[in-house]
Amino acid sequence: MEKYSTKDVNGATTSNLNISIVGAGLVGSLAAIHLGKRGHKIKLYEYREDIRTAELVIGRSINLALSARGRKALAEVGLEDKLLEHGIPMYARMIHNLDESHKIIPYDNKSSQAIYSVGRKYLNEILLNAAEKYPNIELKINRKLSGGQVSNGEMIFTDTFTKEEEKVSSDLIVGCDGAFSSVRREMLKKPGFNYSQTYIEHGYLELCIPPAKDGGFKMPENYLHIWPRGKFMMIALPNQDRTWTVTLFMPFENFDAIKSSSDLLSFFNIYFADSIPLIGEERLIKDFFKTPAQHLVAIKCRPYHISSKVLLIGDAGHAVVPFYGQGMNAGFEDCSILTELFTQYDSNLEKILQEFSDQRWEDAHAISDLAMYNYVEMRDLVNKRSYLMRKAFDDFLFWLMPNFWVPLYNSVSFSHMPYKKCVDNRAWQDKMLSKVFKFVGFLVLCGAGVGIYSFTRRLNINTEIIEWIEKLKFN
Amino acid sequence: MEKYSTKDVNGATTSNLNISIVGAGLVGSLAAIHLGKRGHKIKLYEYREDIRTAELVIGRSINLALSARGRKALAEVGLEDKLLEHGIPMYARMIHNLDESHKIIPYDNKSSQAIYSVGRKYLNEILLNAAEKYPNIELKINRKLSGGQVSNGEMIFTDTFTKEEEKVSSDLIVGCDGAFSSVRREMLKKPGFNYSQTYIEHGYLELCIPPAKDGGFKMPENYLHIWPRGKFMMIALPNQDRTWTVTLFMPFENFDAIKSSSDLLSFFNIYFADSIPLIGEERLIKDFFKTPAQHLVAIKCRPYHISSKVLLIGDAGHAVVPFYGQGMNAGFEDCSILTELFTQYDSNLEKILQEFSDQRWEDAHAISDLAMYNYVEMRDLVNKRSYLMRKAFDDFLFWLMPNFWVPLYNSVSFSHMPYKKCVDNRAWQDKMLSKVFKFVGFLVLCGAGVGIYSFTRRLNINTEIIEWIEKLKFN
Repeated sequence: MEKYSTKDVNGATTSNLNISIVGAGLVGSLAAIHLGKRGHKIKLYEYREDIRTAELVIGRSINLALSARGRKALAEVGLEDKLLEHGIPMYARMIHNLDESHKIIPYDNKSSQAIYSVGRKYLNEILLNAAEKYPNIELKINRKLSGGQVSNGEMIFTDTFTKEEEKVSSDLIVGCDGAFSSVRREMLKKPGFNYSQTYIEHGYLELCIPPAKDGGFKMPENYLHIWPRGKFMMIALPNQDRTWTVTLFMPFENFDAIKSSSDLLSFFNIYFADSIPLIGEERLIKDFFKTPAQHLVAIKCRPYHISSKVLLIGDAGHAVVPFYGQGMNAGFEDCSILTELFTQYDSNLEKILQEFSDQRWEDAHAISDLAMYNYVEMRDLVNKRSYLMRKAFDDFLFWLMPNFWVPLYNSVSFSHMPYKKCVDNRAWQDKMLSKVFKFVGFLVLCGAGVGIYSFTRRLNINTEIIEWIEKLKFN
Repeated sequence: MEKYSTKDVNGATTSNLNISIVGAGLVGSLAAIHLGKRGHKIKLYEYREDIRTAELVIGRSINLALSARGRKALAEVGLEDKLLEHGIPMYARMIHNLDESHKIIPYDNKSSQAIYSVGRKYLNEILLNAAEKYPNIELKINRKLSGGQVSNGEMIFTDTFTKEEEKVSSDLIVGCDGAFSSVRREMLKKPGFNYSQTYIEHGYLELCIPPAKDGGFKMPENYLHIWPRGKFMMIALPNQDRTWTVTLFMPFENFDAIKSSSDLLSFFNIYFADSIPLIGEERLIKDFFKTPAQHLVAIKCRPYHISSKVLLIGDAGHAVVPFYGQGMNAGFEDCSILTELFTQYDSNLEKILQEFSDQRWEDAHAISDLAMYNYVEMRDLVNKRSYLMRKAFDDFLFWLMPNFWVPLYNSVSFSHMPYKKCVDNRAWQDKMLSKVFKFVGFLVLCGAGVGIYSFTRRLNINTEIIEWIEKLKFN
């Protein structure tokens, strides 16, 4: 394997910190590369076995949607192209209606940008391989964080095979160990550490559409397929091997009501009839009853550090529900921000961690709320005329004034605008449109009568996104 | 010591459950009595030493305000009178203005109800003594919860002196171990367990006003004294020994800015001049710098159980900030509700715990939000004309229609109306008043001109409590 020597490392600073990264998943591996590239001495700890030689991990979605923020963080360490080659671009949502008709809703009417369906395992492999090329990054697998005091930079790891304990002292611990983070455990006890975990009352279950007999995709592959059914929905993302990962999101009570194969088939016949021949009856029954529906959780923290020795990034700091496809992207963006701050403050950890916490929480909270909202949009609003009219308006104004009027989805998925600003921007757009519609309505009312006014009112139904978000929050 | 035999126990059911209560503080001791009274076999575990023989516990407020909900739960086990004899009734807030003038704001203009200042230690002693009279309640002090699986009713306790371990298996574990609950630790990991801990950006510090030379109180004792100063405030509650517990609430940055005795005295001279001779300069300086300002946290959970074997009540399930004086009262109300559910479902734990979680969370969240809001009212609004006008309106309507128009504070402190209903009720009152004022304003505008309209508008400034609450929340 090709190895970089430290002198190849770009942007390395004079100070050489000992940094321990906990969790060698997507965000942990990328963080290792970002910080390793700066010349710091990195130990990358992983509780599980090496994902490159492991079987599929149950309960973790096997494909993800890569968009602008993730791409930027990958590009910064020279890995964007490698990922895009592998990823499958999805330019639009393809809506599967109950009557088996289809409707296509492009993500970006103006410049046909796409989000990319990438496999978790492949992505993790690329990242780990890239990390291992740095002589200053050491990967330590099968290590369970079993003790120590993270606020002092002290951790004890237990080898999951030999049960041997290792005591590690670091200048900085970066917790990238996901929504159920072990690094976070001690932080929770620290006065002033705000934290919430919110489960939604819907669960998810993964199914699979196999390749066609000729080895190709069974559905057009450059789309994110959605079966919106109001209170629940099914989606499908394409995989490199011509399969589709199908995910059913639904209230737990609806899952519980399906007890037998015949319950399942009659449910699918009513709501997802066109998917039965795609999945295959036998496989549908087998996969549906294999594992129970999984929970979906949103995590919020503030701050992300409790001393200048420990920081949470990625899902450990801000796990979100998956409906905006931003969980991984937000985690990757954390790496970009961290690199920027290391440059700006020349490895002064106190300043870096304080600034990271100060500037990141509002954005992380914003994307969390947006992701909650987007579930309603995907499963319900997407089929409403009011939503489609608003989208047409947004697209038209975006086309007319691309720098002035960026629709919400585009700012979140195809720009690096801070998430909080995306939300504020949308609130401002709502307000503007509302004023314009009211003014037009008033003119129309004066001139032509009541009928057309009520039509313009309908354009406005879908504007109050902020109210939606408030309603969806767990308090 | 007099002991009750089990046949004296009222309301005992045929089923005799083994119930372990973790935490022998106020709520734990009362829960033991409530459940012990029903004939269940109770073990009451306490990590600390016996409070009856212990020195003062640092960091826990030494006096509390007992109101209707707490009194009801005490009355149900025959302890209300004993507590009221000891408590000092506070009929009104006494506002200490900057110019050293005073203003009195009664809690209940109509029937002169009071909240009672009671000492934590005395109250806990009464409860523990009462608990020990039951032969079926066993108190086990100096026991630290060190392991086990609470979801299965299994706990391991370590004797803090001998270090001996005891394994305990219970039909039900009731976690009453406060805001930093150990019982809750395992529950946090359970999918579907919603949780948040929110620290406010203000801290608190306790001071003391000693008795007068003649052994009496230095201030009129039947009042809760408040020094509202906008962004911060000081309060004082009377103690049985003629001292006052004085609590200063303030942003941490303001605490940090006071570094020396002269900083402290000049700060007090500006904002709390009348309190300096009451506390005494020397004592003020000593007490202020003795311990750093403490944090204030609000805890929210939903549900309060993760199996039919474990339940959180009191601060362990819903710690609130102290500004409504409802933390202990809400915890005591949990005991009343639990007793009701035990009667209703005849000790069927599955139903009792499910119903407790289902009916309690909205009320607990409501009082938490109200307590956050009340800090703003106490430190700032209480001195605003708009607040006083609104209060006068409320009091008048309450006097006119005592069953129809119950002001918010009265419904929270002097009734057993569920907290959520108190909030909904207030929201409805806000709406009604707003409509009436608008209508009156419109009439006035038509008749007499603009001047008086702007006056009626001012009446309306303090109505939007719900907006305040939304703004104050940590998301």
